[in-house]
Amino acid sequence: MKRILNIETIKYLGKSVKVCGWVNSLRHHGGIVFLDLRDRSGILQVVSTPDLAKDVKEEYVLEVEGQIQKRPIKMVNPELETGEIELRAEGIKILAEAATLPFDLKDLKVSLPVLLDWRPLTLRNKKIGAIFKIQEEVISSFRKILKDLGFTEFQAPTIVASATEGGAQLFPIKYYKYNAYLAQSPQLYKQILVGVFERVFTVTRAYRAEPSITTRHISEYISLDAEMGFISSWEELMDVCEIVIKNIFFDIQENCQKELKMFDMTLPQLGKKIPRLKMREAQEIIFQRTGRDNRKEIDLEPEDEKEICLWAKEKYGSEVIFITHFPTKKRPFYTYPDPEDENHTLSFDLLCRGLEIVTGSQRIHEYEKLLKNIKKFGLTPKAFQFYLQAFKYGLPPEGGFCMGGERIVKQILNLENVREASLFPRDMERIDQRLSLLQPKKTTTLPPPSRRRRAPKRNAKK
Amino acid sequence: MKRILNIETIKYLGKSVKVCGWVNSLRHHGGIVFLDLRDRSGILQVVSTPDLAKDVKEEYVLEVEGQIQKRPIKMVNPELETGEIELRAEGIKILAEAATLPFDLKDLKVSLPVLLDWRPLTLRNKKIGAIFKIQEEVISSFRKILKDLGFTEFQAPTIVASATEGGAQLFPIKYYKYNAYLAQSPQLYKQILVGVFERVFTVTRAYRAEPSITTRHISEYISLDAEMGFISSWEELMDVCEIVIKNIFFDIQENCQKELKMFDMTLPQLGKKIPRLKMREAQEIIFQRTGRDNRKEIDLEPEDEKEICLWAKEKYGSEVIFITHFPTKKRPFYTYPDPEDENHTLSFDLLCRGLEIVTGSQRIHEYEKLLKNIKKFGLTPKAFQFYLQAFKYGLPPEGGFCMGGERIVKQILNLENVREASLFPRDMERIDQRLSLLQPKKTTTLPPPSRRRRAPKRNAKK
Repeated sequence: MKRILNIETIKYLGKSVKVCGWVNSLRHHGGIVFLDLRDRSGILQVVSTPDLAKDVKEEYVLEVEGQIQKRPIKMVNPELETGEIELRAEGIKILAEAATLPFDLKDLKVSLPVLLDWRPLTLRNKKIGAIFKIQEEVISSFRKILKDLGFTEFQAPTIVASATEGGAQLFPIKYYKYNAYLAQSPQLYKQILVGVFERVFTVTRAYRAEPSITTRHISEYISLDAEMGFISSWEELMDVCEIVIKNIFFDIQENCQKELKMFDMTLPQLGKKIPRLKMREAQEIIFQRTGRDNRKEIDLEPEDEKEICLWAKEKYGSEVIFITHFPTKKRPFYTYPDPEDENHTLSFDLLCRGLEIVTGSQRIHEYEKLLKNIKKFGLTPKAFQFYLQAFKYGLPPEGGFCMGGERIVKQILNLENVREASLFPRDMERIDQRLSLLQPKKTTTLPPPSRRRRAPKRNAKK
Repeated sequence: MKRILNIETIKYLGKSVKVCGWVNSLRHHGGIVFLDLRDRSGILQVVSTPDLAKDVKEEYVLEVEGQIQKRPIKMVNPELETGEIELRAEGIKILAEAATLPFDLKDLKVSLPVLLDWRPLTLRNKKIGAIFKIQEEVISSFRKILKDLGFTEFQAPTIVASATEGGAQLFPIKYYKYNAYLAQSPQLYKQILVGVFERVFTVTRAYRAEPSITTRHISEYISLDAEMGFISSWEELMDVCEIVIKNIFFDIQENCQKELKMFDMTLPQLGKKIPRLKMREAQEIIFQRTGRDNRKEIDLEPEDEKEICLWAKEKYGSEVIFITHFPTKKRPFYTYPDPEDENHTLSFDLLCRGLEIVTGSQRIHEYEKLLKNIKKFGLTPKAFQFYLQAFKYGLPPEGGFCMGGERIVKQILNLENVREASLFPRDMERIDQRLSLLQPKKTTTLPPPSRRRRAPKRNAKK
């Protein structure tokens, strides 16, 4: 018999079927065993004799054959898509055993470090798994709308030869007999490719050696990057970004109802048009509202991002807002200066529910101007020779933006920490497991004096 | 006026339009200038007065306004989609200038190193660009068919903490105060995720520190990975792989006619079913055909792969073939041994036109057996603790395969070198530019004696 999915069994009432999955839970009720079988489509209740199920435990992997029957009325479970039926088991085959679980996997109440220490297991929790169904949808929606807009998808390289965007926070690689680094972004490559395909995008990995632990940063993240040439104005970049964001929200609304419900979340509110505000104006508003005077700062602080989002929600009913015209000092060398004010740039961030999720700008496309800016930023033109070819041989006015793949999911689901939105997050303390456990430092420090009780004994033995 | 694409102008006969693009070529004919304007949709002929076009050169970026008119009959170009019309320029605006080209970009005749040294420019050649339209289609087709088959797409991490698949050919990373490496494949993660989504795939970057230069290897490549649980037999993996390959070929046939034509290529021939042959049988056939006795070798040599493909084409009319049952020694620790012959494995390669493009196998899903194999392969179980969780808590029989994103394109287009199928190939000598030029070694070697003419002079100065 061919295996069918749990969700398909509702079409097999009165018929014999074979299903496979994990034992989500197990309840003994007198002479009957109730067993919730979990597969990728959902849960199916299996009823079995104690004998058939005698060796079965939670998370065992089973193949079950039997007949689909209606549940007694009082046993119907409206929460389940298969809630009106059950499978009367006639044969149970154990495909794989499982050790005793270290915690309740269905009702998961563990700290973030434990959640991540046990990631291969905790991802099996339906709510945790749902985060990555949302992530999949965000990415596929991003690709779909950009293809519809005439963008070409490309695969960006991640090993680079030099510190392209300024030098800090790079991971060095031993690359044969040379030095190389992990790319901070696919920025230079997407600009080069404007010269080839005009409009390009990529879903790639980007790397930042963040020397601190925050809830917003991870060392390796998903970068959703787009770049387009022949723009008629720099505002066109925000227009396209707005279309992309709206489409992503629309697709999640359409295709991820079940997942949103698990988190009891609705998508961020959007007005007709996403408000656009200069950074200096935002600082002024924040000062007026809170008395916090950051009007001379060259960037928004995390608390500023939260405050201006509150303002946008109150004033425009929008949980997202564009902040524009960041200072030249704060943006990379390729950012186009505002012709009306050279100290600020034609740049923007998109904030969503208090956090930056997109950053973008028009770029300098004129070869001589770009070369000058590279020098002005204290960078070496020689390291940019390859990139500069694109400009030396003619590149149209262009710009683009990138979106943090984990951050957008974090904000949609209102997760506390960006790590929760990364399948296998890397940070300064963790690559899958805690690095301090995997690669203990050679110098072992003694515990503080009050706990040194066993130390004298060990010394005495010598 | 809003810019339209070149290809759209055919609907604007007699009307005024604005188009943008690069000057692909420029011909002066007496009092008239013919100018081929290239944009992402194709070429449009622009006719201009010498005066309007007086500053224009090849690869300049232009915005041209004017009227669309029919070409004189004898000027019709059947090779172009816009071959029956032309744009009579009324205004030409230079959006960006271009330096004089170092070679003829339209009729590109340069060596591979030069092609790559000038990649930002040479990618603008229509035939070179077409390679990456094919690559885009391969990847999007791979995703589409797997989603249709119930697979979930995930984003794999690329920084790993240990040498997961055996140790050789890894790039070390300085990761904060720890050691880390670039992932050789997403293998362990896709297996872990079988425990979550049953069927998963990813399009990711994988890294191999290949210490030699071949036409088949690059240091960073696109890995198209799929993994599936609850397989009924290991042959099911080849069945799914066959569906994927056939769909990719089908989609390219449907959507990339223009690109295939540029290379004068047709897709690899396929019979009704892709032939499947044990490696030992293949070696025997090769011995019978050529007298070359590799029957004791633990892998196929490149020349063997070519020969057995010739055989498959002659015998089955198929340019692809599965080779199965590779020796246990030659496959990674997670590969399932053949229950009928423990020295060989339930593994396969898919060869296409003489080159391996896919590799796959059933995996060991039993925790104890896997643990034993890790030790048997001389690896440290502790380094696999995280991965092993997936098996300790129940994983069904499973397996999968991965496809080289550049290799499949190379074989479809019959390119000589896999580097041609990578936008920005990395190898031991190159990251965009030649590393020897970017990072010259500190020990400068003197030129050979016969050319040392200037050396005495320099010495004399000291």
